[in-house]
Parts: sequence; C-alpha cells; structure tokens
Amino acid sequence: MKRSERELIEHLRQRAARLARGSRRKFLLRQGIGDDCAILSGGGREELLVTTDLLLEAIHFRREWQPPDSIGHKVLLRGLSDIAAMGGTPRCCFLSLALPPDISGRWMGQFFSGLFHLAEASGVILAGGDTARSPAGLLADIVVIGTAPRGKAVLRSGARLGDEIWVSGELGGAAEALRRLRQGGRAGQQMQRLRPLFYPQPRLKLGRLLAARGLASAMMDLSDGLSIDLARLCKASGVGATIDAEAVPRFPEASLEQALHGGEDFELLFTVPPRRARRLPQRAGGVPLTRIGQITRGPQLWLVRKGRAEPLPVRGFEHF
Amino acid sequence: MKRSERELIEHLRQRAARLARGSRRKFLLRQGIGDDCAILSGGGREELLVTTDLLLEAIHFRREWQPPDSIGHKVLLRGLSDIAAMGGTPRCCFLSLALPPDISGRWMGQFFSGLFHLAEASGVILAGGDTARSPAGLLADIVVIGTAPRGKAVLRSGARLGDEIWVSGELGGAAEALRRLRQGGRAGQQMQRLRPLFYPQPRLKLGRLLAARGLASAMMDLSDGLSIDLARLCKASGVGATIDAEAVPRFPEASLEQALHGGEDFELLFTVPPRRARRLPQRAGGVPLTRIGQITRGPQLWLVRKGRAEPLPVRGFEHF
Repeated sequence: MKRSERELIEHLRQRAARLARGSRRKFLLRQGIGDDCAILSGGGREELLVTTDLLLEAIHFRREWQPPDSIGHKVLLRGLSDIAAMGGTPRCCFLSLALPPDISGRWMGQFFSGLFHLAEASGVILAGGDTARSPAGLLADIVVIGTAPRGKAVLRSGARLGDEIWVSGELGGAAEALRRLRQGGRAGQQMQRLRPLFYPQPRLKLGRLLAARGLASAMMDLSDGLSIDLARLCKASGVGATIDAEAVPRFPEASLEQALHGGEDFELLFTVPPRRARRLPQRAGGVPLTRIGQITRGPQLWLVRKGRAEPLPVRGFEHF
Repeated sequence: MKRSERELIEHLRQRAARLARGSRRKFLLRQGIGDDCAILSGGGREELLVTTDLLLEAIHFRREWQPPDSIGHKVLLRGLSDIAAMGGTPRCCFLSLALPPDISGRWMGQFFSGLFHLAEASGVILAGGDTARSPAGLLADIVVIGTAPRGKAVLRSGARLGDEIWVSGELGGAAEALRRLRQGGRAGQQMQRLRPLFYPQPRLKLGRLLAARGLASAMMDLSDGLSIDLARLCKASGVGATIDAEAVPRFPEASLEQALHGGEDFELLFTVPPRRARRLPQRAGGVPLTRIGQITRGPQLWLVRKGRAEPLPVRGFEHF
C-alpha cells in the first residue's frame, strides 16, 4: 500500500466516523473501517459481518501464470478469510466483474469452477453482483456477508499486555511458491508446491472456535505478511510485540524472511490471554497452532533471534 | 448489455440457484440474482437488502465531461436507487476504488464531497471498502445495504394482469442532457439543464411509502430506460404491457424517444392493482406520480399512439 492510499483511507475513516457519530439510528454500525470486516448490529442475536476485496489483474494476479480456477478460488478466498478472521460464518457473496474483451468462455468457466467449488465447500451462496466490460485487464470485487453471535466477533483491537501471540498453519509457503514461479518454473509440473499460493484455504473452523470459546483477544488474517499484519494488530490494540524467530512455523523450504514478510498465506494471527492459553487445542480445523511470541508495551515490535532482540522490520507483501 | 454478458449472468443465476436449493441453512437468501437487490432474511423483523453496482470510466462516466462531485454522487446514487426500488431504507455502504495514477488529491476530494453529501442526506454510513491502483481508468464498485420490514420489499415479479403502470417524476431528462453535452455544450454554463444527468435523486421516500402501504405489486428503478426496464419487469412477472405515449411524463425539452428509451433517470417504475390505485397520492417525496399504462397478457409490449397500438421497441441505454 502506498502512502497516498493509506492517507486516503485514513481520511475516509475519519470522515465516515464523524458522520456515524452524528447519526441516531437503530441499525448500528458497531465497527466501521479499520478491521477485517465491518460489523452491523440490527439488535438480533446475530451480527452481520461485511467485507469487500478488490482484485486487479497484474497487481493481485497474473493470467499468464495462474490457472483460471485458482484466480476464481482466490477472489472468494480473500473475503472468506476476512470472515474467518472475525470468527464468523460466511453466508453469501456478491461478485462484480469487469471483463476484458480477450477473455474466453472457457477461461470464465474455469474461473467460476474455482469460485463455486470453494463457495460450496464453505456453505456460501452467490447472491448477486454486477458485470461490465473492462478496457484493460480483469477486475473482480468480492463482497462476503457473514454472521457471528452478538458480541462474539473478534476485533484487531483487543490484544493486551502479556497476551500470547499465536498463528495457525505454516508461513512463507505462498512467498516461496511465488519465488519459484518467478524463476520460471512451469506451473503444471510443480502444482503441489504451488498449492499454498494458488489454493490457500480459509481458516473458518478455527476462527469460529476461537471466537465461540472466547479464546482470542484479537485476531486477523495474514494476507500481506506477518510483520506488517502484526504491526496493524498492535497499532489497533495500542501495544507492541516480541516474536521468537525460532518459533515461527515455516512451510517446507520457506526461509525465515519469507515466513516473516511473505504475504498471501491467509493463516490466522491471534492473541490469547495467558490464563486461557491452556484451553487452546494443539490443532484446529486440521491445522496446527503455534505460539510465536508475546504482546508487550507499545509501540515497538521486536524479533528475538538466538537470544538477542532486534527491531522487527515491517515489510509489506509485494503483489505479483 | 451485450449478449455474452446476459448469458454469463443467466449461467451464474442458474448455478447459484442450484447451490442455494441444495443448502439447508437458517440464514435464508429469499431473493438472489435477478432483482434490484438481493434479500437476506435472518428471521428477525427486518430483512436485509444488498445491491452492488460497478462503474467504469469511459463506460459509465467521463472525467472530462462530468464534475468530480457528480461522479461521486452517481456512484452512490445507483445503489441507493436500487434500495428505493425495493421500498427499503439504506443503512450503510461499502466502496471499492481502483485509482489511476493521474488522479489528483483535489479531484478525489471533490469526488468524496459528492458521495458524502448524498450519503448524509440519505442517512447512509460509509462502513468500509478497498482501494487499489488501476492501470487504466477510474473504477468504482459500490455496495449498499438497506433494510425493509419482513415481507414488505417489492419485487419485479409481482405485476398481474390488469395492474396499472405508474412512474415517478419526468423521464428523458438525463438523455436530453447527454445530447447537449455531446453537442459540445460547456458543463458550467448550463449546469441547471444538466442536473438530471449529473445529480439525479434516489426516490427513497416514495419507494418506502409504496412498500409500507402495500400499494405497489411490482417495482424497479429506471436506470437503463423505460422500454428495456419495463421489459425486464414484465419478463420477471410473466406479463405484457400497454403504454400510452401521450401519458408518459417528459422532462422539459425531452422527446418521446428520450422519455421511452433514455436511461439514467432513476425514477421509479411500479405497478398498482386497480383497487388500490385510489389510495395513491398525487405526489410523494416531492415528485409527481403518473399513470402511463396497464399490464396485459404477456409477453408483448405495446405503445398506443394517437389511438393506434404498435409494438414498443425495446432499446437499452447507451452509456457514455
């Protein structure tokens, strides 16, 4: 994200917050811009989670490198992962597509195969959307709507001094796969190794478990990389963090650099108050859970490596 | 809309409907693809309305012709108009923006002025969104979420034989303004005449009134033009229609052609069972209501002109 984009979002957040404060309405926006999802509370037992993700060709994906069904999969995956990061259950999605003239019917069929396959596996219905012709490149905007029991959605802002920092699964797999792709490896020959990049899975069961049992004090998904996403969680919570380099679980052949700064892993990053940590399972929804550090007084992030603490550099994900 | 786009949407609708039927879930999608909004019913007293609209530079708007605040206004207006067309109350919106590198901060400020001004006037909060760099042209995808009392949202599919056909306001104003622009008129000198094109208003009060009092049997907004939108309403309802050419209310200086086939007026088109028509007010939310025809056996659409009936040609809106 460029500085100008950050400034624009911050400007919008402030202006939207002023408007929201000035309004008196029953249908409350409990959480607006700044978390994985917005939370809408209508007064019932379930709150609504809403997330939108905009994906552009050449920035978020490349048609020449990536199978069409993987692009369809990842368009929906991004939204599902945001719902998982709040501990919610996804219900339906809306897809807006701008299609360049050179897209074939066969390509679109495979794109939708990937999208519908994941939708079915996740219990999500395609409920609407819009299409238009694109002058340059494919563009997809996905909206996913989910639900969570009232007050149970886990925000980024709940981490407290002394909380343990945990991640699901293994990190760096998508970054290592991207490196292989860039080195010119043919996608077909090594699809297994490219799976973390092409077909990451939303951690919906884990997210729901952590939210329903009240285990996580803060949570988000790792879309841009551990260091930058941890910095966001810490900023939202007003805390700092220390990460133990040895503890960070790495995907086979992924380097520490890739595990710390590579994006697109879509694992969950969450914090747990120490007294609740013993109730954490070792695995959840088929993935291992690993403790990687601790919440400290803010705002600095530290990396402990061979017994020595050094500042953790914050580096974002470099899109395709 | 091109044939291929229609085919794609129809394919998606059928596939999504199959998936929806196969699922057993409490959170019901009461109306999916094919109306102005999707309707989600969570079992409470309010149902949720969700609509998405994708706008692309050079297709839906032109930066060189249109003031930035008008573009911001119309991005939100399209979504609000869909909520009005169901008889709902808009609650919050989500905006995804792909920004080309040549957009200035000043331009963006004016764009958001237009958008926030309409949001405030309509009681809508900007609750989230996403941004990205665009390789070519500005792109905006707007999602508006609204509510309607359970079972009160008005669909396109409820028109029945003998129902009266009504429209709000005056038609053809946007088409006539577009013609002036194309002839090279400077926007600043004749802003008043360009208002129907640049600053159309969502008919929210009227939509709510028609829905709450159970007056409209079917309703939609006129975004692409009376002839094509009426054809969509009739197809969804399985009926035909006869329109009285003399009765169609025209914007000053707009031709019958412009009133019948011009798009972007964002007035409401609705049908009323004859026994309820006497309860219709003459004006609602500041706009006049006009009876323009009657629902007939399907599927043909007729235009009655000087006492003679001729087939009503169905022509879509030509975007910029």
